Amino acid sequence: MRIARHVQKLEEYVPGEQPKSKNVVKLNTNENPYPPSPTCAEVLKRFDLDKLRRYCDPDYTELRVALAKLNKTTAERIFVGNGSDEILSIAAKCFVENDEKIGSLDPSYSLYKTLAAIRDVEWVGAEVGVDNRRPTTDKRVSLFLLTNPNAPTGEFREPETIASFAAKFKGIVIVDEAYADFARANCMALATAEGNRNLIVMRTFSKSYSLAGLRVGYCVGPADLIRAMYKVKDSYNVDAIAQAVALAAVKDQKWMKANAKKVIATRKSFTAELEKRGWDVIPSESNFVFAKPPQRGRDTPVASEQKTPAASRIFAALRAKNIFVRYFKYPNTRERLRITIGTPEQMAKILKVLDAIRLD
Amino acid sequence: MRIARHVQKLEEYVPGEQPKSKNVVKLNTNENPYPPSPTCAEVLKRFDLDKLRRYCDPDYTELRVALAKLNKTTAERIFVGNGSDEILSIAAKCFVENDEKIGSLDPSYSLYKTLAAIRDVEWVGAEVGVDNRRPTTDKRVSLFLLTNPNAPTGEFREPETIASFAAKFKGIVIVDEAYADFARANCMALATAEGNRNLIVMRTFSKSYSLAGLRVGYCVGPADLIRAMYKVKDSYNVDAIAQAVALAAVKDQKWMKANAKKVIATRKSFTAELEKRGWDVIPSESNFVFAKPPQRGRDTPVASEQKTPAASRIFAALRAKNIFVRYFKYPNTRERLRITIGTPEQMAKILKVLDAIRLD
Repeated sequence: MRIARHVQKLEEYVPGEQPKSKNVVKLNTNENPYPPSPTCAEVLKRFDLDKLRRYCDPDYTELRVALAKLNKTTAERIFVGNGSDEILSIAAKCFVENDEKIGSLDPSYSLYKTLAAIRDVEWVGAEVGVDNRRPTTDKRVSLFLLTNPNAPTGEFREPETIASFAAKFKGIVIVDEAYADFARANCMALATAEGNRNLIVMRTFSKSYSLAGLRVGYCVGPADLIRAMYKVKDSYNVDAIAQAVALAAVKDQKWMKANAKKVIATRKSFTAELEKRGWDVIPSESNFVFAKPPQRGRDTPVASEQKTPAASRIFAALRAKNIFVRYFKYPNTRERLRITIGTPEQMAKILKVLDAIRLD
Repeated sequence: MRIARHVQKLEEYVPGEQPKSKNVVKLNTNENPYPPSPTCAEVLKRFDLDKLRRYCDPDYTELRVALAKLNKTTAERIFVGNGSDEILSIAAKCFVENDEKIGSLDPSYSLYKTLAAIRDVEWVGAEVGVDNRRPTTDKRVSLFLLTNPNAPTGEFREPETIASFAAKFKGIVIVDEAYADFARANCMALATAEGNRNLIVMRTFSKSYSLAGLRVGYCVGPADLIRAMYKVKDSYNVDAIAQAVALAAVKDQKWMKANAKKVIATRKSFTAELEKRGWDVIPSESNFVFAKPPQRGRDTPVASEQKTPAASRIFAALRAKNIFVRYFKYPNTRERLRITIGTPEQMAKILKVLDAIRLD
């Protein structure tokens, strides 16, 4: 066998399109519309090239200490990855045996399913729709990936709900808090709590810190779990520049928070505008909304099953106007569009185009 | 089970020490003593921060095309990783089933053994010493990692030898050519050959390009194998800055080659100096030498088995003088030191200190 069987049959994850042109309104991959802290640019300008000649600090000590301080915990509870993607992949190695399973909400971040396929284990969705919040109880699930606020829905679960789930769950729960800086609360205190045995909170620099292209994510959890992740990581998984730029971003909390605040304000006004137009918008605590276009009178349930959903047609119509949003064609997502919150100007533009779209 | 069994018992790979002080002669991790191309600094100075705000090109198209051109092949045969470490980890997913094995020369890059342990499969060393070149023929070995020039020995195998091994071998052979730019020949033509079915050549920016801290490696092989690796990689595994800096380095071949030439010249003179002092130096085609200190008259074989090898004691004595070299305490490596080739000044310094060391 040249290529492993499970890789041969793997359906790969397809990330949102990254158009090379800058002449688009890009609301498809939940990037922050505002730039990263200017201190990041300073780091690049002054970067000592000798730090590239040498290997970087494999333990990214300075960054780790800064993240520990930020989250009021100790460095031994912090792990940093080449994006959250790498953290997930390492967790799948550390916390899942070959005959165990990975669970997540459904719908949720669609990468999770691919992650399980790459790890060659079964994925279990909670087999519930957007409105049913009962998580899976399959005993073979040893790792549960709980996105909060969830994607693509934007919905938020209270930390108490998550704490109570983790307390009952036998395996490891990773609370993927990619969007936590846009939410009213988060689970960090659960992750740093003395008695915590199985809950890890994961954060990223891709969203609120406006550093998607830098590839830095981190997680916080019990020291023994973090230690296990260190054992399997590549020696130098976070490069010298990423360490330095992320450190600068961490130190400029004010910048990040001001941007998050602007995004939240725009989310509120954009949601109101969509609702005014008859869209159904799931209350979002993230930097995107998951919204269902209004049903036309003659769209009977049977007819809408058979034909292309309105969301899909609007997606195509927007794309033709160089406005990129995200459409997921799964049964429980196909009626909605996930629209990233951009600048007020970008949201005004998409509304204008939406108002002009004629689907018939 | 909270932490997977194979991770619990894992003996992790320990990379060479990365002392934070610059006041050391650092000859322990095969870094290039000369700086990266000045064009890399230019890239950093002029880097558009908006490229960090957005996700990066998941297919690193520009870099890929440049690497294809450099190696006279097509982009579909090129894969780029967050360092060669990531490429190895991805290959272990793609080309090894749970009941198969990973093979390598022995001694070789000691990470390979850990890589197999992380993948939870058996590692098979060729069970031959430095002077016996017969590779393993265990039929369950589906991935063979063949370092050429080898590390820590520095020895070089002719491409014909490797081609003939790959032709007989049923699985995938990765020729790890981290040090190829310091060698008299390489296997790239085997990797790009039309009829090649199972040979992948891997290169890194860490050594000849002086970019160890940037974490970029790449490999070249049959398009179907490269495609399989793409399927399992993280979506954005090479960050925007790493893509841009590596591209600048690729385009300045003259710089890289001039540095490699200097290192080769220093390797020759340093080897001659060691031999003059009675050291046994394996002919090296890399940027380091693997050398055995002279035996004292009264060191009978039995006595030297029992006591700490001279190499280990010299290692400690050098370290006390802030000179870092590498010592591997395995049975087939414990009599030698691996010494990276630095600048002529650094090599003069280590020789001076070696001349002053009294082991008794």
